[in-house]
Formats: sequence, structure tokens, C-alpha cells
Amino acid sequence: MDGPGVVVMTVSYDGAPFHGFARQPGLPTVQGVLERALSTVLRTQVEIVGAGRTDNGVHALGQVVSFPAACDERDLHSLMRSVNALAGPDVVVTEARMAPAGFSARFDAVAREYRYRLVPGPIPPLFLRDVAWWVKSHLDLGEMRVAARALIGEHDFRSFCVTQSAEDKNTVRLIESIDITPEEHLGEHVVVVRIVGTGFLHSMVRIIVGTLVEVGTGKRGAAAVGEALAALDRTAAGQTAPAHGLTLWHVSYDEECWL
Amino acid sequence: MDGPGVVVMTVSYDGAPFHGFARQPGLPTVQGVLERALSTVLRTQVEIVGAGRTDNGVHALGQVVSFPAACDERDLHSLMRSVNALAGPDVVVTEARMAPAGFSARFDAVAREYRYRLVPGPIPPLFLRDVAWWVKSHLDLGEMRVAARALIGEHDFRSFCVTQSAEDKNTVRLIESIDITPEEHLGEHVVVVRIVGTGFLHSMVRIIVGTLVEVGTGKRGAAAVGEALAALDRTAAGQTAPAHGLTLWHVSYDEECWL
Repeated sequence: MDGPGVVVMTVSYDGAPFHGFARQPGLPTVQGVLERALSTVLRTQVEIVGAGRTDNGVHALGQVVSFPAACDERDLHSLMRSVNALAGPDVVVTEARMAPAGFSARFDAVAREYRYRLVPGPIPPLFLRDVAWWVKSHLDLGEMRVAARALIGEHDFRSFCVTQSAEDKNTVRLIESIDITPEEHLGEHVVVVRIVGTGFLHSMVRIIVGTLVEVGTGKRGAAAVGEALAALDRTAAGQTAPAHGLTLWHVSYDEECWL
Repeated sequence: MDGPGVVVMTVSYDGAPFHGFARQPGLPTVQGVLERALSTVLRTQVEIVGAGRTDNGVHALGQVVSFPAACDERDLHSLMRSVNALAGPDVVVTEARMAPAGFSARFDAVAREYRYRLVPGPIPPLFLRDVAWWVKSHLDLGEMRVAARALIGEHDFRSFCVTQSAEDKNTVRLIESIDITPEEHLGEHVVVVRIVGTGFLHSMVRIIVGTLVEVGTGKRGAAAVGEALAALDRTAAGQTAPAHGLTLWHVSYDEECWL
């Protein structure tokens, strides 16, 4: 191994107080808070790479960031504690490990999992109000599951992303799975939409969820999702679900990445 | 049935913004917010009775309140929606039903369940930071369970309550069960202490949990809890666990209560 190696950290954050993950001058961002804490602790300017750029208000349970540094096991533990003391309480490092020089949290990621929480029905969520979208109506989960099938596999997701200026931008992505499951958290009932794929376009998960919710409430038929995909046109898909229901849940790497 | 009947509502609330459940002039309280919303909707002064008086900062998933009024099924639904629109977002009515005249949410309750969430270990909670106590140390759940056994049954819980001025006050209570279980909520790991009993003294659940945590971290032996109980002296028990980890989870009534 040449070079100092790369520190890889798993990070949770509450999206509400931040203007997204990516550093922006003069605005509170997750990258900004983490880089400031790391630079203070390590007494050198640290620049991190994130596995996924989450938007304004989007949460993360398992964001992964990386930066070159040489740390042994004991260093990693004390680094985590120091960064958590400085960066908290809205950002928490939950794990730290070493990868060989050249590793990138972004480019070495093999899959990303997002979860979106929905609260159907007339009763608003209380403990989950900042991490779930209250859709108010009943949701037909069976119809939503049928509709979601059209999105599995490799497709051009032009209809399910925020329009880009560059027309030739590659909008082909691979979705491995979409699961729609009732769960209970903190005593409240939610429907969780779990989407796993190799990578996602800007706002892609939120537009998929917004469109599936329109199927679940009966505003669209289940076939409309496949039709929206084929249209290659953003206006053919549904609304963008609000940011606060979305969490970047997990990023996967090949096991041989770790030292 | 004589009289107008009694409306019984199940209520969730976030304890953080309130000075406890019980009405206090000039301070934000759950009772104050609910009575104001109900009085506005029903256009008459409403006074509610609560099943349990939660302290400053304590949450509720299943608090129960009652007040005399005549409502049919449709009235109850629109009452819930109106109260939720006025009282939210920190207080949510999740259920409403009718009981016969004379019913009291407080005096007809046959059991109360509280849950306390603990986060052991060096990683602070993120999404659960406002509803769980980060105890930082490892917890030996086996020792905690052994210690808790001494509290099951009918005992004088003088050691486990905030000292009262009246010496003859009855401090005998019945604890039906204490369960200590690892759970996962919003992707984070917690230990939940579930305590069911007929009724609880002031701060009793929090002092029990604080004492069990001292057993779990090895500061006390498991036998110390039974000894503290026998001492009939508050100073024999452990610290009072912080309010934000505690939730009034459920209040039970006999099935024949409902119309």
C-alpha cells in the first residue's frame, strides 16, 4: 500500500438544519460541519468526499465520507469521539475504518439504499413528524407495488429527475429493488418505501415516491408509472415528495475495500 | 344512561415544549393547549381529566383524557380533526370514543404502561436524541432484569418517589411487570424499559430506571435494588433518569367502559 490510506466514516444526520450535504460558502451544510470538525481535530485542512449528495432537508442514517489520513484502530475511536463532540448534535459519526490509498466513498460505492417514510390516513404523525411525509389519504400498497415493478432494472430515468441543461447527460440508471412495507417506529405506523440502486439522479427517489403515492391514492393507475418512464419527460411523472420523508439509509462497498 | 355521556380521547404529545401535562396559569401545558382547542371547537368552556399527570418534558403516546359532552360517531371524527388542526403539531389526538356519564379517564384506569428508552455505548443517538437517554456506558441487561424482579408486586415505593411532605401519604403501589428489551427504531438501537402498574408515584418510573441503569453499568449490584426498596428512603435508590427518555405509552380500561 502506498500513501497514507483513507479514513472512511459512516455518518448520520438530521437534514432539517442543513442546506444539503455539499459544502456551500456561508451556508450550514453537512460537509462544512464535518470538514470543520475534522480539520480542528486533525490540525490540518481536511476535504471529504461523500457517497451521495443529499439535498436540502434530506436525512442520512448511513452516509459514507472518506478522506486521506493515516490512523490506527485507537486513533479512529478517539477521532470519532472528538468529531462527534464538535459536530453534534445534528451530525453523528457512527463508524470509522481504514481503506487503502485511492479509495473513494463516492466512486467505490456499489449500491445505495434510500428509504422514504409515508404516513397515510387522517391522523398526523407526532414523533415521526420530522422524518415522514403525512399523505393524509389511504394508500393502496398493492397498487403501489404493482406500479413500482415497471421501474426495476436498467432504464432511462429522464422522466424521474430534475431537468438538466445538458441534453446528452446520461440519465440511465439501474434500480435493483423497490420494497413497500408497513413498519412501526416509536409507536407510530408508517409505510416505508425502500429503493436500492447503483446510483440515483437528482431528486429521482423523491419523484418516484411522489408518483407512487399518486398511484396509492388512486389519482393514477398502476400502469401510469411505466408509461411515465417511457415518456422520457419529467412532466409525465408525478409530484416530488417532500425532502423530510427521505433518508439515505445505506451505501454498499465490496468487502475487499477494507483494510 | 343519564347525562350527556363522556368523550374519551387518546392523545400523543412531545413533552419538550410543555411544562408538563397539568394546567398552570401562564405556562404552556398539554392540558392548557387541549382545553383551549376543545373550548374553541365546542364553543363552551371544556375542562378535561387526564389519566396520568406527566412531568415537564415527559412524552405521551397514549395519554387518555375525558370530558362530559354528547357526540355521535361523526361528531367525534370531525372533533378530532378540528382539535388536531388547532392543537398541533406537538399534540395529536389519535382516537376518540364515548363512555357513559360518570366515566373518568383518571379514576377508571386499571393499568398504566410507561416506556423508557436508553441508548448505551459510545455513539450518541441522532434521530432518537429527543426521546431516549444516552447513558454512554455499556448496559448489562441480564443484571438489570434480575434487579427489576425485586420491584414486581405490591410494595411501599417510598424509596422510589420524590419525597412528599405528608408523612402518612400512601406510597404503596402495584407493579405488574418490568421488561427490558433491545429494540430498533428509525435505524437506531435502544434498550426499552417497559413498566406496567396500576398507578405510579411522582417520578417513580424515572427513579426506577435511574437505579436500574446504575445496576446495568456495574455501579450497583443487582441485589441493591431490593435493598433500596426495603430501606423506605429516597436516598437509598439511584438517580432520577432524565424526563426526555420517558413516554406514557398506554392506559388500560375495562372493555365495558365503552359505549
